[in-house]
Amino acid sequence: MKLNMLYSFLKADIDLIEKELEQAISSQSPSLRDASLHLLQAGGKRIRPVFVLLSAKFGHYEIEKVKNVAVALELIHMASLVHDDVIDNAELRRGQPTVKAEWDNRVAMYTGDYIFARSLEYMTSIENIDAHRILSHTIVEVCVGEIVQIKDKYRYEQNLRDYLRRIKRKTALLIAASCQLGAISADVPKEIHQKLYQFGYNVGMAFQITDDILDFTATEAQLGKPAGSDLWQGNITLPVLYAMQDEQLKQKIIQVNEQTTKAEMNEIITLLKRSDAIERAHALSQRYLNRALAILKELPSNRNKKALRDIAKYIGKRKY
Amino acid sequence: MKLNMLYSFLKADIDLIEKELEQAISSQSPSLRDASLHLLQAGGKRIRPVFVLLSAKFGHYEIEKVKNVAVALELIHMASLVHDDVIDNAELRRGQPTVKAEWDNRVAMYTGDYIFARSLEYMTSIENIDAHRILSHTIVEVCVGEIVQIKDKYRYEQNLRDYLRRIKRKTALLIAASCQLGAISADVPKEIHQKLYQFGYNVGMAFQITDDILDFTATEAQLGKPAGSDLWQGNITLPVLYAMQDEQLKQKIIQVNEQTTKAEMNEIITLLKRSDAIERAHALSQRYLNRALAILKELPSNRNKKALRDIAKYIGKRKY
Repeated sequence: MKLNMLYSFLKADIDLIEKELEQAISSQSPSLRDASLHLLQAGGKRIRPVFVLLSAKFGHYEIEKVKNVAVALELIHMASLVHDDVIDNAELRRGQPTVKAEWDNRVAMYTGDYIFARSLEYMTSIENIDAHRILSHTIVEVCVGEIVQIKDKYRYEQNLRDYLRRIKRKTALLIAASCQLGAISADVPKEIHQKLYQFGYNVGMAFQITDDILDFTATEAQLGKPAGSDLWQGNITLPVLYAMQDEQLKQKIIQVNEQTTKAEMNEIITLLKRSDAIERAHALSQRYLNRALAILKELPSNRNKKALRDIAKYIGKRKY
Repeated sequence: MKLNMLYSFLKADIDLIEKELEQAISSQSPSLRDASLHLLQAGGKRIRPVFVLLSAKFGHYEIEKVKNVAVALELIHMASLVHDDVIDNAELRRGQPTVKAEWDNRVAMYTGDYIFARSLEYMTSIENIDAHRILSHTIVEVCVGEIVQIKDKYRYEQNLRDYLRRIKRKTALLIAASCQLGAISADVPKEIHQKLYQFGYNVGMAFQITDDILDFTATEAQLGKPAGSDLWQGNITLPVLYAMQDEQLKQKIIQVNEQTTKAEMNEIITLLKRSDAIERAHALSQRYLNRALAILKELPSNRNKKALRDIAKYIGKRKY
């Protein structure tokens, strides 16, 4: 089962958004256009637009209005990826060279700036000022998250709370905002759009934990980059935190730095997979998903609610 | 006569904005706080907040409301400076090491991102959606300007139109937006806030041309960086374009690159100052100022209008 089968009834609208995304980033500046298109064509799940659309379906769904929010949120996500790759010094994303690798850090910086600025233009089609407040708070948190992520690199004494706060800023808040802003753009009542925010937050947490698990359990072909890349770059994710509770494994992990060889990394991955780290990380992801599903139960039943439930369940099971 | 004497009746409000700016960028992340404070303390004329306040005086001036717009616009300006310094690879600004020089490009990138995100938060206190549309269009243009500026570096065959379009995006649009948004936040009628936009645009063009002249005519002590820095970095400004109309001078100028020595640069500066380039650049700046002053005449007379006129005149005469 592929993810996009879960919301096939939205296909026409998703296609429309894909076209709009392409138009949004096309620019007269060739280097900018090339870098942005490169990014767009590298693909992605477009999970934020999907959440925007499905949440808007709880209200007066007008595609011409809601599509702007969907485009804006995907653009913000894309902009943050380009800047993240500069911060992480990442060479590959989804099997493609990153903008900073294909061009350089400066191109990546201004490409991100431009995409981000374009997202703001799309958002101004929404007159509700609450939507803008929610989004700007979210963006500040995402930025702070970027910075904390650097500070936390190779900091092996960090705890679960540090990790959870980091993935909240990195992923969960923007997915939560996607749900809530999609709903607000369709005049969904407050008590419902606040629940959609909570749903998005919990799904987002589960989504990122799953991503962090897959970094160890998926293959290089599936990931589009070597397994264990996160740890290599010093990102201490949930499986690593659990694995470090084993004193022997911890001694190996805290040696990891940019000079660690692939063979050394593969040994750590093998040991980590033999420990209970992956299983425990799955369990925490599942707890977030269960919360998300419980929140959904309080919402009116309809086809979009079913799709949200299916997506949440899919996230808990996805293999890459 | 100092610039801030021209609007001394705003002193209390300007001081309030200065405090608010400091609060806006204080963050729990030490590296972010240090980089942002470094930037704030390097100073600047705070010309955008001044234009916001003076324009708001044409309407229902409420400092608690208008200060958010003033802070937002100064923050956007600051964020663009930090990213500009990455793009220009600049070591000094206002005599202080730039963020990218004191820390590195990555810190400069995320410091800019953060300051920019904070500016959006301040803007959301303004409910008028037109204000957000104007601002987001302006930001897109500023970003495009950043990129075109790179493309245009050391491109000696560019023309006056390229230059004017570049400084419009780099400077004039944000000053125009400062005037218009200040006015909108104080419910100034459309026919007046549109004129204030035009006034700001023309003053902004004159301001940037003057800046570009000073890069050659002011001393290193006044500039806080070596004279001729713009040309050294490949920025072809108005005096350079005029100077290149002299074939002999052109042959020297088109040799300039990053390896040009200080002695070679000083020779070019001397020759440029002997040509009519500075005088002609001043004349164009004066034309923009005259247009700005003509627009002001159409606005209601009051103390703030007088201050705007004095500032415009000051800009035409400032020595650094």
